[in-house]
Amino acid sequence: MSSYCIATYRSYDEKADFHKKAQGIAVGLTVGSWTDLPEARKAEMEKHLGQVVSVEVHESGADGRYADISIAYPDVNFSADIPALLVTVFGKLSMDGRIRLIDLHFSDSFLGHFQGPKFGIAGVRGLLGVHDRPLLMSIFKSVIGHDVHGLKEQFYQQALGGVDLIKDDEILFENPDTPIGKRVTVCMEAARQANELTGQKLLYAANVTGPTLNLKDQAKRAIDAGANALLFNVLAYGFDMLRELSADPDINVPIMAHPAMAGALYPSPHYGIAASVLLGKLMRLAGADLVLFPSPYGSVVMPKEENMAIKHALLAATDSPAYKAVWTGSGASSAGHAAPSLAESFPVPSAGIHPGLVPLILKDFGGEVVVNAGGGIHGHPLGTAAGGRAFRQAIDAVKAGIGLADYAADRPELNAAIQAWGIRE
Amino acid sequence: MSSYCIATYRSYDEKADFHKKAQGIAVGLTVGSWTDLPEARKAEMEKHLGQVVSVEVHESGADGRYADISIAYPDVNFSADIPALLVTVFGKLSMDGRIRLIDLHFSDSFLGHFQGPKFGIAGVRGLLGVHDRPLLMSIFKSVIGHDVHGLKEQFYQQALGGVDLIKDDEILFENPDTPIGKRVTVCMEAARQANELTGQKLLYAANVTGPTLNLKDQAKRAIDAGANALLFNVLAYGFDMLRELSADPDINVPIMAHPAMAGALYPSPHYGIAASVLLGKLMRLAGADLVLFPSPYGSVVMPKEENMAIKHALLAATDSPAYKAVWTGSGASSAGHAAPSLAESFPVPSAGIHPGLVPLILKDFGGEVVVNAGGGIHGHPLGTAAGGRAFRQAIDAVKAGIGLADYAADRPELNAAIQAWGIRE
Repeated sequence: MSSYCIATYRSYDEKADFHKKAQGIAVGLTVGSWTDLPEARKAEMEKHLGQVVSVEVHESGADGRYADISIAYPDVNFSADIPALLVTVFGKLSMDGRIRLIDLHFSDSFLGHFQGPKFGIAGVRGLLGVHDRPLLMSIFKSVIGHDVHGLKEQFYQQALGGVDLIKDDEILFENPDTPIGKRVTVCMEAARQANELTGQKLLYAANVTGPTLNLKDQAKRAIDAGANALLFNVLAYGFDMLRELSADPDINVPIMAHPAMAGALYPSPHYGIAASVLLGKLMRLAGADLVLFPSPYGSVVMPKEENMAIKHALLAATDSPAYKAVWTGSGASSAGHAAPSLAESFPVPSAGIHPGLVPLILKDFGGEVVVNAGGGIHGHPLGTAAGGRAFRQAIDAVKAGIGLADYAADRPELNAAIQAWGIRE
Repeated sequence: MSSYCIATYRSYDEKADFHKKAQGIAVGLTVGSWTDLPEARKAEMEKHLGQVVSVEVHESGADGRYADISIAYPDVNFSADIPALLVTVFGKLSMDGRIRLIDLHFSDSFLGHFQGPKFGIAGVRGLLGVHDRPLLMSIFKSVIGHDVHGLKEQFYQQALGGVDLIKDDEILFENPDTPIGKRVTVCMEAARQANELTGQKLLYAANVTGPTLNLKDQAKRAIDAGANALLFNVLAYGFDMLRELSADPDINVPIMAHPAMAGALYPSPHYGIAASVLLGKLMRLAGADLVLFPSPYGSVVMPKEENMAIKHALLAATDSPAYKAVWTGSGASSAGHAAPSLAESFPVPSAGIHPGLVPLILKDFGGEVVVNAGGGIHGHPLGTAAGGRAFRQAIDAVKAGIGLADYAADRPELNAAIQAWGIRE
């Protein structure tokens, strides 16, 4: 039996025959032509022919008349890598009018070629020794124009506040003032100093940048200097480069995927690729242990519905019915076979996060989430370390089932945060 | 004196203070904060601070109120590679509301790190020995499900028609039936056979696909088997991977950039990256010798204005005033310095091309263009070889200053093409 990967598109057109359009895609992006072929040739080509799975026409959507069209592409047509899949299903088609790639479902055979996240949620928790609460991450306040002493001090203050992870800014590239090896060395020294006071472990995700074919060396230089995680601007290099980094046995630390450039692709209703595909499925498939994406709460906003779709793509356990629904679909997998296993990736909703949002974040994302803050930590009225503590207190409050306002009564850090930014529940 | 790369955005907002927004971008994407800094620190940070170059507000555009905002980013802030530049100027910003990257101008210092196209237009013409007319390219009719004998026969018929270049389909990936080495061997054999009849040279661009870190090996395998050009799905791997391939001295053949996936990025008025940046400047900068993009004529359409912007980006000679205007801008270059030299890339407007369009293509693009056809060659009433000849006749007619209809009178191939598809002048 052939196996297929399924792409779902939203196609906008005020008068198209969408069923005909779907047939055109299924044939045009696979065997090229069909009705003209001699019968004998059809028998040979059948296994390469795309199949229309479904066409749902919506006569009056808010953004115009559209149809959701699902096409099954035979795995035999493309090599088992993300560039080949994307070029097959949306290479030429992306340029063919108002059409958007809104979902992908993968065959077991295709998935079987991917290792997925090397650490995943369980692995990241294991490294930190934290199993009973959401994690807390912070971002440097500013990085450009600083020397390593400046970065070390910022790092130390963040670490003192009890954060679990600290990440480089995505715009910190290899540079003479704070080259990756030197910066990792001093920041990990700051981590050790903070650990003497907090007793807490910490992951530092160093930003791996520069020429494509030097990225692995750059990653290993960071790891040799003590980096215990990496940050990567995936979309600037392509999903396959994330997979290459993640698949390398010598890159034995979690990789955090940054969504830089994603806004060029996901927000239009008519064009591009849905955030759940871009920042959900493909990031997990390619091996991201943690995935940042714009939260629905803050300044850089993504609609709640899309955030939840990303969450489901990252969190669905491979042995759950949700995984089958979200990842392999009903038609894509061979019945009775267990789907290949992919570890879960940590969702990291980002931007505009302050302690008063913690109850909402945990309500929306559950316990498997990284609470990630920049201004909400560095801008705390009592300073950066207090900013971290306020978040940890907010997380503790939710865990204990106590309202933030009550919990803040004898906790000056949380109290100051609430005075500054309020509570949204 | 500092040097800067300049990004221009189109930002849509019904009521924003665009001047304030521009300041926010210039500060936020560079030093992070400015007004809070102590004076002594400002002096140190000044060289890292982004500068607002211009803000042009348009109160009533067809797609809403907008402003074109140009920001100069100090080169010192990012490493001299395309991922770093893009992540700096549009990484986070792409996710910040309705905003589109519409142009980039580069400093001489930044450009100086790039070799650009290894062959360029002059080099490609030199390989073919064709200096006095536009080139003609054809695409396989269908590739999936064929064995090498099927491809060889298609290749031979195309070559017989007098085309200068033949390219793989972008959805032909490494596969057991037609692996790249075997396919190149048989197709180059067909090229030799056709050459005995036509006396004409021919470039075959083999599609380099698969895992990122195997791409160079794949390219060298194709070259070892005789491929004298390569096709590459640039956007599936990132611009820097094109640069890596182009910069490798062992990959000593022209590289053709395919625009697969580009439609996920350029068509929205509100989001994404303009086609002239995506398929023009960045492709040339990264080293594409030929660049395919949707023509303004055919089924997969791009507006004429955008096509012309791509043309200018690819064709402006580095010693011309146009180059300075299009590439380095007025503010970006140090006065008096010659801009670093980048060979020109061949524009290849594609999709829906038939011989009757040749006069229009040459009028729009001038002589430095590749006329590229698929259906317009294979669908010719007298067959594939006749399809190629019809195009060559149409090119000759325009060169001779004779109308297509007149020129077709005693040329059955061109005549049949005109009967089938008409003339658009």
